[in-house]
Amino acid sequence: MSELRKDPITGRWVIISTERGRRPSDFGIEKARAKGGFCPFCSGNEDKTPPEILAYRQEGSKPNGPGWRLRVVANKFPVLRVEGDLNKEGVGLYDRMAGIGAHEVIIESPDHEDTLSTLPPKHFEEVLWAYRERMLDLRKDFRLRYGMIFKNHGETAGATLEHSHSQLIALPVIPHLVMEEMSGSRDYYHYKERCIFCDIVHQEIHEGERVVLENQEFLAITPFASFSPFECWILPKRHDCSFEESQASMIQPLAAIFSEALKRLERALNWPPYNFILHTAPFAERKLEYYHWHFEIIPKLTRVAGFEWGSGFFVNPTPPEQAAKFLREMEGF
Amino acid sequence: MSELRKDPITGRWVIISTERGRRPSDFGIEKARAKGGFCPFCSGNEDKTPPEILAYRQEGSKPNGPGWRLRVVANKFPVLRVEGDLNKEGVGLYDRMAGIGAHEVIIESPDHEDTLSTLPPKHFEEVLWAYRERMLDLRKDFRLRYGMIFKNHGETAGATLEHSHSQLIALPVIPHLVMEEMSGSRDYYHYKERCIFCDIVHQEIHEGERVVLENQEFLAITPFASFSPFECWILPKRHDCSFEESQASMIQPLAAIFSEALKRLERALNWPPYNFILHTAPFAERKLEYYHWHFEIIPKLTRVAGFEWGSGFFVNPTPPEQAAKFLREMEGF
Repeated sequence: MSELRKDPITGRWVIISTERGRRPSDFGIEKARAKGGFCPFCSGNEDKTPPEILAYRQEGSKPNGPGWRLRVVANKFPVLRVEGDLNKEGVGLYDRMAGIGAHEVIIESPDHEDTLSTLPPKHFEEVLWAYRERMLDLRKDFRLRYGMIFKNHGETAGATLEHSHSQLIALPVIPHLVMEEMSGSRDYYHYKERCIFCDIVHQEIHEGERVVLENQEFLAITPFASFSPFECWILPKRHDCSFEESQASMIQPLAAIFSEALKRLERALNWPPYNFILHTAPFAERKLEYYHWHFEIIPKLTRVAGFEWGSGFFVNPTPPEQAAKFLREMEGF
Repeated sequence: MSELRKDPITGRWVIISTERGRRPSDFGIEKARAKGGFCPFCSGNEDKTPPEILAYRQEGSKPNGPGWRLRVVANKFPVLRVEGDLNKEGVGLYDRMAGIGAHEVIIESPDHEDTLSTLPPKHFEEVLWAYRERMLDLRKDFRLRYGMIFKNHGETAGATLEHSHSQLIALPVIPHLVMEEMSGSRDYYHYKERCIFCDIVHQEIHEGERVVLENQEFLAITPFASFSPFECWILPKRHDCSFEESQASMIQPLAAIFSEALKRLERALNWPPYNFILHTAPFAERKLEYYHWHFEIIPKLTRVAGFEWGSGFFVNPTPPEQAAKFLREMEGF
């Protein structure tokens, strides 16, 4: 089992994986584990993963066999488990609870050679549909407060398997950075009576210099205070706080801009490792005026020194205006 | 020049290095740069660094020549510069200011083969004296609000030069994580009328299971909610908010426990890359009842996936109780 512990000073929650309990000699073996000829995510190896929770498959094909285009399965090495009670308790001044939650893997394609950015448009849309469907299902569990969807692409971005996949972790607490975004944007709303993300969308469209791509519904920008070079956000232009509750008609234009942004980042940066994370409202929130869902894509280009994640203070060597200009001017491929 | 930009949503400041302005093709060359036979930090190469700001040297030896035990110089590639005005300004809803600050390097020994943990006790103390002296000097500059001392040891921890050194960045803003610690510990103080760090020290000594080392003045623990495996904090047992204002008599016991903690981490984890960061009160603060300075040592054992520093949510595979037990039981070397 794992447990969730709260830093009493900053209020951040950490998952402590007591089950794995890695000893000193266990570190440094990751590289070896990541390679190898066999892939449990490839078509034909369905019995090597936990049973599918959701799949988009050919009519007539059977669950947990070939014929699928996309599968969602439980993570075989989950950081949290669905079974059990939260058992919240205090230990002196500390707080902890059981590691309850869901940890799922979205296998984006049966083909080992596919990457998210090379999927045909309809297939990319299905990935987004799967995110949405799983979020809508998991939010029914009253113990869970937040659904975090993310992708680690490439070994240095944290991917332990090469086959293209994303992950969903549903948590019984709200992640720190989401809390920060919520409270920052709430403060702004109280002061201005406007959503700060909507104001950002307006200012960026007006100024133009940090815009990477735009379509009828979405804007892709390199944010003003990008903490990482070539960081890229995709935001709906109209106010909306919850990804999974957004209109079905948003999926097609989202897939289009997302795919194009990834293609440009990959070409510009020579197919870098990258991460993306969905930022959306907590499960319990409905129709928030001040919060605005978006995806953040972070190419992994610089080595994050410990002082940066230990201080929260980042140095970004590429001004976002330069990054946006570069990505904007990549045409015709 | 560089500039400081504030994330309008979370309030985090980022240094955007407009001078370096790295283009896509510039990434991935770091490895090549880090190696090479020549070392500007070695004795005899004093003219290859900016002139020394502080040095501890043999009596009669001349500045910027051999005969030193420790030198402090300006960083040749600073992320911030001392000259100029802050020029704070708003740009629509965004805020920025000039990249004013200091970026210094503490060269801990003239010998390329030395590491901090292998320095003799008196020499280790001199490193701490240098930190203190530079902090006391820089806080006189009214534009600067915070002094951040840290060390990146080893390439994957962000060190670009092998020769043992630490860094000091003095900032015109207070780093986000320090603000968070300050506000979290202030809330606790308002509620309890006690310093939360003092309470942690008491609880840890009482429980014992997360204690790594203890001497008359200091405690080394693996914190309850360690976000990283084998993370280790060194705290003064008596309340004190400011490292640079702490009593001179604290330096000797601090060097002793710090050196021993590093030695144990290095031996246990096979000489891992690591970072440490001093957490201390902002320059303007005096005699804070609620804040408590400490060092945080973070061995770089796991790959931090983008989702972790993008969500603020960490998974730690080694319970701190196991890490402490392991480090505690390493005797006699």
